[in-house]
Amino acid sequence: VLPSEIAELIQHIRSGHRLSLARTISRVEDGGAESHALLAALYPYTGHAHIVGITGAPGTGKSTLVTALAQRYRTAGQSVGIVAVDPTSPFTGGALLGDRVRMRALSGDPGVFVRSMATRGSLGGLSKSTADVVTVLDAAGFERILVETVGVGQAEVEIARTAHTTVVVEAPGFGDEVQALKAGILEIADLLVVNKADLPGVERTVQALEMMLELAHDAPRPLHHHGQWLTLELPPSVVEPATRWPVRVHKTIAASGHGVDALHQRIEEHVTWLRTTGELALRERGRILHTLENILRAAWEERIQSQLAAAGLERLVEAIHQRKSDPYTVAKELMASDKELGFML
Amino acid sequence: VLPSEIAELIQHIRSGHRLSLARTISRVEDGGAESHALLAALYPYTGHAHIVGITGAPGTGKSTLVTALAQRYRTAGQSVGIVAVDPTSPFTGGALLGDRVRMRALSGDPGVFVRSMATRGSLGGLSKSTADVVTVLDAAGFERILVETVGVGQAEVEIARTAHTTVVVEAPGFGDEVQALKAGILEIADLLVVNKADLPGVERTVQALEMMLELAHDAPRPLHHHGQWLTLELPPSVVEPATRWPVRVHKTIAASGHGVDALHQRIEEHVTWLRTTGELALRERGRILHTLENILRAAWEERIQSQLAAAGLERLVEAIHQRKSDPYTVAKELMASDKELGFML
Repeated sequence: VLPSEIAELIQHIRSGHRLSLARTISRVEDGGAESHALLAALYPYTGHAHIVGITGAPGTGKSTLVTALAQRYRTAGQSVGIVAVDPTSPFTGGALLGDRVRMRALSGDPGVFVRSMATRGSLGGLSKSTADVVTVLDAAGFERILVETVGVGQAEVEIARTAHTTVVVEAPGFGDEVQALKAGILEIADLLVVNKADLPGVERTVQALEMMLELAHDAPRPLHHHGQWLTLELPPSVVEPATRWPVRVHKTIAASGHGVDALHQRIEEHVTWLRTTGELALRERGRILHTLENILRAAWEERIQSQLAAAGLERLVEAIHQRKSDPYTVAKELMASDKELGFML
Repeated sequence: VLPSEIAELIQHIRSGHRLSLARTISRVEDGGAESHALLAALYPYTGHAHIVGITGAPGTGKSTLVTALAQRYRTAGQSVGIVAVDPTSPFTGGALLGDRVRMRALSGDPGVFVRSMATRGSLGGLSKSTADVVTVLDAAGFERILVETVGVGQAEVEIARTAHTTVVVEAPGFGDEVQALKAGILEIADLLVVNKADLPGVERTVQALEMMLELAHDAPRPLHHHGQWLTLELPPSVVEPATRWPVRVHKTIAASGHGVDALHQRIEEHVTWLRTTGELALRERGRILHTLENILRAAWEERIQSQLAAAGLERLVEAIHQRKSDPYTVAKELMASDKELGFML
């Protein structure tokens, strides 16, 4: 892309041209050097949206909840971007009639933009470019960005690193064993929601979650400045808040709107809390660290691919299989030869 | 380590010296250049063990099942190494009295070696060095290596890449929604086990799993030569088996030993199937690819850490936070400067 073309595109996006926005997202999803040039140009316009991650197992009604929350934000006069990264999400295609009717309330509204994305595999997980799509929507001026993800293991941690506020959605009827399995979600949840609160067993689920919150009360806080393999020394101006955000369990029936006002209000309280305590500055640095890690990892992976293609991956694997070599020696030689090969991004 | 010291260590390990084995595993777990020198020296002795991954949620009774299987292998005269990567595993410390009594049957037997490992986080996941510990046990001559992992998302995929045979353990009482959530496990399971088959609801769980197997029958096979980011062209001699391995659901009550003989027999049938159809050659190459990816990734991550420490990570993040720079430009500059910096493994 030419710089002049990028400048024009940015102008279009920021003035609300939806087709330009959709095209930019597609180009960003394609990845590669062009995508990075676009994102670098968009980056100065970012940092204004508040990003809310909404994660939970399939069947918990996340999409309906996202729709209801988006409507609530529209009533409050705020623009909303929605990114759905969930193979089971109605946003992604598998909509039931009822969902479609509810979602129709959002369509045609220039203050709402919905984008669905494919996941990396059937076990869930964020798409590689989720954070990049969020960057585009942020630069486009959306005030709130809701990212819906199917919560399976690593994806939950990923969304917490991408979002400012993480909402974990459960539904009644999940057994105690599953709750135990999911103990890790308490490390990432800023709000807990038991949706479908009209189903039997709701109080048992609420109590189980509240008991887990009680038990987790003294657990160490998540270290936002610790990335997956990088660690950031924080400047003296960035400190942990003196008090901890009180995580609560909320009951909602997203389909009827019950409890959605209270949930919306609580999310906004979290926005205020993040801003006034300084926690936002902390999380923002964590998000930058996470973004850097992802870009660098992808770049190195690409470089290793080129290197191995040049060195003959198949030949190396056969030599290892025949025990004429071993993976450690092969890796060492590849790393040493990289200096000479000198691949560029 | 000096080459002479390594040679001596290998001799000790291979002659069954348990203290040397334990020490070698600890050194391998410590990581770094010394660990790689050790593993490279051990590698020529590997490739003889059959590695069985046993994965499932906490509460499914995996550890008891692993103990019962190990006893069965001992009766058949085969040596067994056990690697437990599960924070909730009795092998790792949280044993109930009954578990301890059962596990005691294994202690003192020179044909059994048990090693427990910490996981990377509370959401589960394989330890970074699980595959390395398996390599040591393989080189030490153990004929079967059982790797117990808590099955949460990515960890399940990881174990399937590390093992030759993957056993997924369920227990009665897991709801249908959870089954749906876990549809991905069918991609990795060679055997399905419903343990605690004396609990109510066992038939419902068996039926749910069998229905999922039915539905997944036409699903594409896992591509063992596709790594996380590398793809291997297979030599003409390595081809997919003409027929597919029939995955079945097994009922066991590990605590009483019920069904364990049949499970053991079926695992051994899988060993024979892998060897006779050529699938083993395929999976072995996939394992090598996976090992290479992990070593290279760790090496690159270390290199990036050094680079960012030299470049001033904190300064870069502050510049990005103030929108004076952006993550994409920073990453590009780091990748370009790597050639000159020329860090070595």
